[in-house]
Amino acid sequence: MKRKKIVTIGGGTGSFTLLSGLKKYPVDISAIVSMADDGGSTGVLRDELGVLPPGDVRQCLVALSDSSDELRNLMNYRFEDGGLKGHNFGNLLLSALEKTSGGFSNGVNKAIKILNVKGEVIPVTDQNTNLFMELGDGKLLKGENEINHDYTIEEIGIKKNFLKPIAHANKKALQRIKEAVLIIIGPGNHYCSIMPNLLVRGISEAIRLSNAKVVYNCNLVNKKGHTENFDLDAYVNSINACIGSSRIDYVTYNVKKPSPQLIKKYESQKELLVPFDEKKNAKREYRVVRTDILSDYKPKYSKSDALAAQRSFIRHDSDKLAKVLMLILELGDFNHIIKGII
Amino acid sequence: MKRKKIVTIGGGTGSFTLLSGLKKYPVDISAIVSMADDGGSTGVLRDELGVLPPGDVRQCLVALSDSSDELRNLMNYRFEDGGLKGHNFGNLLLSALEKTSGGFSNGVNKAIKILNVKGEVIPVTDQNTNLFMELGDGKLLKGENEINHDYTIEEIGIKKNFLKPIAHANKKALQRIKEAVLIIIGPGNHYCSIMPNLLVRGISEAIRLSNAKVVYNCNLVNKKGHTENFDLDAYVNSINACIGSSRIDYVTYNVKKPSPQLIKKYESQKELLVPFDEKKNAKREYRVVRTDILSDYKPKYSKSDALAAQRSFIRHDSDKLAKVLMLILELGDFNHIIKGII
Repeated sequence: MKRKKIVTIGGGTGSFTLLSGLKKYPVDISAIVSMADDGGSTGVLRDELGVLPPGDVRQCLVALSDSSDELRNLMNYRFEDGGLKGHNFGNLLLSALEKTSGGFSNGVNKAIKILNVKGEVIPVTDQNTNLFMELGDGKLLKGENEINHDYTIEEIGIKKNFLKPIAHANKKALQRIKEAVLIIIGPGNHYCSIMPNLLVRGISEAIRLSNAKVVYNCNLVNKKGHTENFDLDAYVNSINACIGSSRIDYVTYNVKKPSPQLIKKYESQKELLVPFDEKKNAKREYRVVRTDILSDYKPKYSKSDALAAQRSFIRHDSDKLAKVLMLILELGDFNHIIKGII
Repeated sequence: MKRKKIVTIGGGTGSFTLLSGLKKYPVDISAIVSMADDGGSTGVLRDELGVLPPGDVRQCLVALSDSSDELRNLMNYRFEDGGLKGHNFGNLLLSALEKTSGGFSNGVNKAIKILNVKGEVIPVTDQNTNLFMELGDGKLLKGENEINHDYTIEEIGIKKNFLKPIAHANKKALQRIKEAVLIIIGPGNHYCSIMPNLLVRGISEAIRLSNAKVVYNCNLVNKKGHTENFDLDAYVNSINACIGSSRIDYVTYNVKKPSPQLIKKYESQKELLVPFDEKKNAKREYRVVRTDILSDYKPKYSKSDALAAQRSFIRHDSDKLAKVLMLILELGDFNHIIKGII
């Protein structure tokens, strides 16, 4: 039987979580990954070696890798001392492969073989570009890292998000979007992981023209100063506006409440759970699949450990999320069935 | 049929050349590798990360690797810019593996799997130690790098070579020496690659007690200020003295003359071909296998390239050397046959 073709669009931890679950199903996965990262180890490598940003690609490779835990640990290993301090081994691997294979995409393909990756990881573009955000007051934020750490965005308002120089999509990314039966957007940082994909020339058009079902995995919590006042509809509207049509068919939304301590910890950092009011909008053009997709992972600390809650996170559960997405893929419009099964 | 067990002892380019040829034969190879390197990328990693020196091990892994040229290129790739400048990707891999696998030997074993290495690469010791050389005038040279670049050694004379702290041999190295039917020493830098192995506690004793044939691949050229006045017998005597018995059974010696231009280039740097005078010593306890084991590799430059000779080297030929060693292994004492065949 022919395996169904799925495309994911995102970057960072969100893609890692999503792909870690999806890879357990017999589907063909192509992970399209944002290339706007310029922080941390990735930023240093971009500056000093002139390579494309390896960080997000690395996370997707590790998520889809079928290799041993040891190899995965190696990819995520961060040097702690000297001139290598802060560099992630996987980033160095991707940068060295870019240099020795004649380009980033070729390097990623080599890494796919070395790591025994189940699926494809496709940089959204092979061009070296930067993400910019122009605010309502004329202030220009350059780069994912700067945008990520500016907390005045929502208050001042965004005038324009853009990439400079203009970046054209990797042809393989466009091909995979065209062939896909399911396109999964997110979860991920709204302005720094999701948007930088949609801003690449050709991607939004390809999504508009595709026959795939499009699912958006709504974030669990809002980001301070960025999407602090967003609800589910605001996220969807923002993405649809960027795509240029009401292309999102399904939205997954978590209904399981995290522990009160964990909510309190997030609220203290102005990161509130994303609200959803079903009655607010009678004419939604997308179905909202409401279910428990929350990770109940608890760090292995003793009860007496007062700091345990601080080390916990509000995160999607890889397996729960993948299960919902597979049901959407198989059952399509039968939202009531999905709700019954899960 | 049981494969014959061969142990090589050395480090650096010499081991790379030797192993690249040996791996083509159906024998079990265990490469014991010097751990005294402290120059270049390796030195920086030792200083900054406190790891064991990866450089020599990397060269042996690449030589024995059955993986693609691409993976070999990757291992040898040297970063050219920024904070990573001068670091060799393979060294970073070994250092990261040491950190994530709980020790250098474990890390090397992981690398053996990743690189599909045909054989074993065994660091001679797992202890972090330094090579010292005390000269006749009391001057103390610390580290392979310092020793390598001091050209007064032969003139002043060596009082003592030692490792500090005292390093004990890797148990696996001792086991492999015990099981071997052939032990191959060199080629390699006499004081910086060969000696640092023999100074590790247990190694010389194991060689003395083993039933293996012991072959020494005599260097092709002498090293300025180190072994400038050595002949073949001087190398053998120096090694036998360190082992503590006349343990060397065979010495391979190249008789093919390099081109006059190449000899001239080496002589201008006081690096002369190692002489051998058969008549000097009537009571040699080792057989000298004299044959053509010279690399005739010529860099791919046009005839009009006046610098071509400068880019050439006097090196052993991997395949010729391996063939002689296999004949010694199979035919043993029949020196006249070996001479007739090759």
